[in-house]
Amino acid sequence: MTIATKKQYESLTEEQAITYAKNLNLFSDDAQLTCSEIGDGNLNYVFHIKDLRSGKGIILKQALPYAKVVGESWPLTLKRALIEANALKKHGEFAAGLVPEVYAIDEELAITVMEDLSHLTIAREGLIRLESYPKLAADIGKYLAQTLFHTSDFALHPFEKKKLVSEYSNPELCKITEDLIFTDPFFDHETNDFEPSLRVEVEALWNNELLKLEVAKLKKSFLTEAEALLHGDLHTGSIFASETETKVIDPEFAFYGPIGFDVGLFLANLIVQTVTREGEQREVILRHIEQTWEVFSANFSELWENKAVESYKDTKGFKDYILDKIFQDALGFAGCELIRRTIGLAHVKDLDGIKEDEKRILSKKQALRIGELLLLKRESISSIQAVIVLLEELQK
Amino acid sequence: MTIATKKQYESLTEEQAITYAKNLNLFSDDAQLTCSEIGDGNLNYVFHIKDLRSGKGIILKQALPYAKVVGESWPLTLKRALIEANALKKHGEFAAGLVPEVYAIDEELAITVMEDLSHLTIAREGLIRLESYPKLAADIGKYLAQTLFHTSDFALHPFEKKKLVSEYSNPELCKITEDLIFTDPFFDHETNDFEPSLRVEVEALWNNELLKLEVAKLKKSFLTEAEALLHGDLHTGSIFASETETKVIDPEFAFYGPIGFDVGLFLANLIVQTVTREGEQREVILRHIEQTWEVFSANFSELWENKAVESYKDTKGFKDYILDKIFQDALGFAGCELIRRTIGLAHVKDLDGIKEDEKRILSKKQALRIGELLLLKRESISSIQAVIVLLEELQK
Repeated sequence: MTIATKKQYESLTEEQAITYAKNLNLFSDDAQLTCSEIGDGNLNYVFHIKDLRSGKGIILKQALPYAKVVGESWPLTLKRALIEANALKKHGEFAAGLVPEVYAIDEELAITVMEDLSHLTIAREGLIRLESYPKLAADIGKYLAQTLFHTSDFALHPFEKKKLVSEYSNPELCKITEDLIFTDPFFDHETNDFEPSLRVEVEALWNNELLKLEVAKLKKSFLTEAEALLHGDLHTGSIFASETETKVIDPEFAFYGPIGFDVGLFLANLIVQTVTREGEQREVILRHIEQTWEVFSANFSELWENKAVESYKDTKGFKDYILDKIFQDALGFAGCELIRRTIGLAHVKDLDGIKEDEKRILSKKQALRIGELLLLKRESISSIQAVIVLLEELQK
Repeated sequence: MTIATKKQYESLTEEQAITYAKNLNLFSDDAQLTCSEIGDGNLNYVFHIKDLRSGKGIILKQALPYAKVVGESWPLTLKRALIEANALKKHGEFAAGLVPEVYAIDEELAITVMEDLSHLTIAREGLIRLESYPKLAADIGKYLAQTLFHTSDFALHPFEKKKLVSEYSNPELCKITEDLIFTDPFFDHETNDFEPSLRVEVEALWNNELLKLEVAKLKKSFLTEAEALLHGDLHTGSIFASETETKVIDPEFAFYGPIGFDVGLFLANLIVQTVTREGEQREVILRHIEQTWEVFSANFSELWENKAVESYKDTKGFKDYILDKIFQDALGFAGCELIRRTIGLAHVKDLDGIKEDEKRILSKKQALRIGELLLLKRESISSIQAVIVLLEELQK
């Protein structure tokens, strides 16, 4: 067993993962450990290690030095494992219970050992199956407010904030977002992926200069605005949920960026659900959307009142200016996410999983239309209720 | 002579500075070196070393581990010397001839050895004496466009840009700006310094919630928006000038911040001159103000057209959106600078040097009034000509 001593990167086998886990002293000596690799193997190995005697489990996640997307493979920094582990711990300081606990970090092997969440379901999967997550919206609203407020200039001494900005510099992962969310889908780029029956709509997007101007502004914001330590990839596939629990995982895209990005990505992934659902089931998601923003803004507001260190915190209109900016940014980022999840490189199962061709295409057209409207109208949409009205109008 | 071998920080004497210079091989062996310390001694030693035989000179600048302001002394990172030297070199890549050449950098001793500019005058001093600088505005307009465009996301690969953002993280010096420009002058803070006859105006500022809201927005921009590698302290005391030359010095406040900050600080320091001048002499400065922006925006525009790497560079309206943002930001930052230079900790000789009480107070009131108007009206002022009109109206 070379791992413990040599500390040169190599990807683990299931057997090596068990040995590694034993050395951490997280299990009793007589534990009977089993291991299965449960990741999708695109970016990371995810070993689920379980003691058959006690039933206790842990997750051992190891970053792989490449990314596989649609058959292609490109090198990807292993540093992302450290950023992810540190972000889980940092966010955990402020949103305890809403992120997995980190037991150990191994920088050389790009391993994070963390809480076993295998009793939960990935929210995207559950939502597609119409499972009920009564706590999801409020928990994510709280998670967003707690993590984003506490890592911002409103809560931190500027020395501490600037230290974190450098620590979480994450150029390679940011580049993926810059390309796949903000650039490629809005140009005739080879990474795009869409059905021929969407070509008319897609070409209309590519030729819509007003729309592209809004995306350009949002991309600029993503590139320059270090407002808070973001999760960076907060879609429903990055959330474990049950009726009683919510846990946000996988912050490997974490970096200092605009607060609205995390908020907008989550909202967009709820909005995708509204285009696949009908009647009461759609209502459930509309309420999730409303509640996410309401809990986020109320919680952020409360933190501002009680904890802000900014000298201008009581200046009339400043808090509202910040919340309005986050809201408008979030709608814009949600628009980008809706469009790229429909026609870009990385799709979502919510839409691609619709077997019936006509319904799938119709849902995708609706997703594109909502994305477009959010981008174009974000400055005139003044409340989350107005978003709900817009979604209801479009889906009548 | 311990310096060359020991490399532990100690501040040099004039004699040690000569020995240090000899070891650099910048002078011939038979050089007859003299040295005089010509700095103001608040933050740095500035040794002017000259060969009496050849007439050739160099500047050896050494950072001191403390800052002295109004008799008080506080510790200040020596790292600023390295940031300053690197910023001079980085900016020199794009604005050759407009910054001093750097001959050597010594991180341990916090020393930068650079081009001797002692034949030039500090622009502030010369402007106060009504000296003519026909190249100043165009040179600074070009310097701003070249340095700010080329270090932005519009010109750099995102990996290179993010590397520079980390390299130029400058928390201690930024904190000075955050406090002295954006915070203290707008509250009843002990660092403020103003004549009793300004108290009515100053208290009106402190009670002006609309004004403070604008300052809060600008401070937030300064804290979060990493648009380009700024000089960070571009007032007329950081510029050497003559009728034929312009050199920007002292970028120890360099960091990644909003482009409009550099532009606005320079404009504000010209505006200060308009309140102290009359008739044709005021006209000269008004033309400088106009020309600075016009050269900056034309040059920035040209760089954008020819060199931008941003995918959205040709998207209709994007370049104008960016230039409008820079302009509005610049007016706001100019407003902050005008106010803090009048009532904050660090004053300017342009105003404080006016011996006649009544005229000095009147000039200061005018500086405050212009600062206030720029802050409140920046979003509705649509061109540099409108700024000139506003200045002319106020000074009729």
